[in-house]
Amino acid sequence: MKQSTKTRPDLKKLEEGILGGDRVILGQAITLIESNLDADQTVASALLERILPSTGNSIRIGITGVPGVGKSTFIEAFGKYITGQNKTLAVLTIDPTSPITKGSILGDKTRMEVLSKDPMAFIRPTASSLAMGGVANKTREAMLLCEAAGFQVIIVETVGVGQSEISVKNMVDFFLLLVLAGAGDELQGMKKGILEIADAILVTKSDGDNIKPAREAQAMYQQSFHVFPEQRSGWRPVALTTSAQTGEGIEDVWKLIINFTQSGKQSGHFVQNRNQQTIAWFREHLKILLESDLQKFETVQQKRRNLEQALVSLSIPPQTAARQLLETYHQAVRDSAT
Amino acid sequence: MKQSTKTRPDLKKLEEGILGGDRVILGQAITLIESNLDADQTVASALLERILPSTGNSIRIGITGVPGVGKSTFIEAFGKYITGQNKTLAVLTIDPTSPITKGSILGDKTRMEVLSKDPMAFIRPTASSLAMGGVANKTREAMLLCEAAGFQVIIVETVGVGQSEISVKNMVDFFLLLVLAGAGDELQGMKKGILEIADAILVTKSDGDNIKPAREAQAMYQQSFHVFPEQRSGWRPVALTTSAQTGEGIEDVWKLIINFTQSGKQSGHFVQNRNQQTIAWFREHLKILLESDLQKFETVQQKRRNLEQALVSLSIPPQTAARQLLETYHQAVRDSAT
Repeated sequence: MKQSTKTRPDLKKLEEGILGGDRVILGQAITLIESNLDADQTVASALLERILPSTGNSIRIGITGVPGVGKSTFIEAFGKYITGQNKTLAVLTIDPTSPITKGSILGDKTRMEVLSKDPMAFIRPTASSLAMGGVANKTREAMLLCEAAGFQVIIVETVGVGQSEISVKNMVDFFLLLVLAGAGDELQGMKKGILEIADAILVTKSDGDNIKPAREAQAMYQQSFHVFPEQRSGWRPVALTTSAQTGEGIEDVWKLIINFTQSGKQSGHFVQNRNQQTIAWFREHLKILLESDLQKFETVQQKRRNLEQALVSLSIPPQTAARQLLETYHQAVRDSAT
Repeated sequence: MKQSTKTRPDLKKLEEGILGGDRVILGQAITLIESNLDADQTVASALLERILPSTGNSIRIGITGVPGVGKSTFIEAFGKYITGQNKTLAVLTIDPTSPITKGSILGDKTRMEVLSKDPMAFIRPTASSLAMGGVANKTREAMLLCEAAGFQVIIVETVGVGQSEISVKNMVDFFLLLVLAGAGDELQGMKKGILEIADAILVTKSDGDNIKPAREAQAMYQQSFHVFPEQRSGWRPVALTTSAQTGEGIEDVWKLIINFTQSGKQSGHFVQNRNQQTIAWFREHLKILLESDLQKFETVQQKRRNLEQALVSLSIPPQTAARQLLETYHQAVRDSAT
């Protein structure tokens, strides 16, 4: 049980607080959105409807990479650069591998020690107790709240494990993959698909003895992009070397992203991508909603249990079972009207 | 348009033909199942219901690998070994990359020239004009028909491209990945996830000058299995070298599969896996059915178009839009009753 039920602020106060850039209220609103309580969800939905017209004005950047690649260190350096440009920054982190404990949340905050003290920055981990689809939805909604609160740049960070990268790719404008230079095995540690969805690859820790291997890795990745078909937007992915220690590449990444968004806005691909993301998000919601709607009817649940037994005893084929369940669902919907 | 509408045999004849092992009728039935005509689908469903009790008695083997790895050559050698053991064999191939033409189908057949003339074997490519989900469903159904026709071993072959491997993994008992020995880059050409779902890896073309690299690759793969968590069944994947030319490893693969199924049947994991696959298949059907049910109602379609416009103009959040569409759907279902 979240404590938010006790301290839930009213809708008007939440809306005004968020639009006024109040971070305490922004934090409360995100907690509200993450809550699974029906009462919280009702307020959260109404809040989202109200703040929606004030969203969409940030640059949304996704960052992924395997554990140990230096994501936090990079975001700390990159984030400081962004706030140094007089831009406000919100960092939303998704870590599907960490359990939800106060420890993990504190851990996440202290991972970016300097940035978390920066008045221009706001750092917030997503409660990772939720199912993956759930985390993605909550993060999207948190992103909208941050935009309504006026943040100009939003970074969504996730570890390069499982399906979370795809979810993040589908909610951002620009998707950054962080990699380490290795002994010729750069491609081995990650899923091949990940390279194909990156808008840029950063070889991290390009300092000291590591500069040469980092540059070699960069060249190799740059080379590998030729294998992939051109993105619909015409964007060609770029590989860069970076060092949080020396600052190498940090400004270049920012310029690259600015360049990307400007040319995307001119060509119309920027808006097109966002619209596609919104429609896809709607479709996901619809699927989840239909699934949970089926579970609301006791007759459907009972029928499903019977059908699953019949299925494993080979007395009904899956197609027929699905048709029968749909009929039961139709009947339940009709009965619920009377 | 398929010609099956003209020559559609009656249900009784199809059932008897299949249960009697008549290959011409088996072929007709698979064509019927692949047809998208409503009339054909009705007969196909009824047929599946009838033959279902006679299914489930084969060993289902999935085989994948990138183009050029030698899948056909391996299946030809492996298939001949199986029929040499006095077992009947059906080979179903899925090639999502090839267009559906008579040429492609003939091409597929002649790829396995010896096996296609073997009276103990039946080779059938799945029409690849269907959407991927569709192909998987049709292949599953074709597999059931082959089982009802008495085939003792079923091989489902797919190229290691796209999502088809996962679909195949989810419909077979044993999943074989074919790989080539390469210059130290064995892991690069394929998705990392594929290694984790393989029950065995075969390094092909282990003959002549290629024996040494093949053995090295085998050792490397065997090593790599230690990285993965143990399968729920307790099965440890195995890497082997094979040569269709010299016959190396062919018998070993068969013994491995026999070993796998026997120990799985003793422990109960064999049946458990099949039951899970059946339930998952049912759920997939249900999703597809719900999706197409929404499309049947003109009011729902109209509402969806309006909502998608409202979504991209940021006047409604995706969650709310999904809820509204569900309400419209409920109303349409109710209205359809009166």
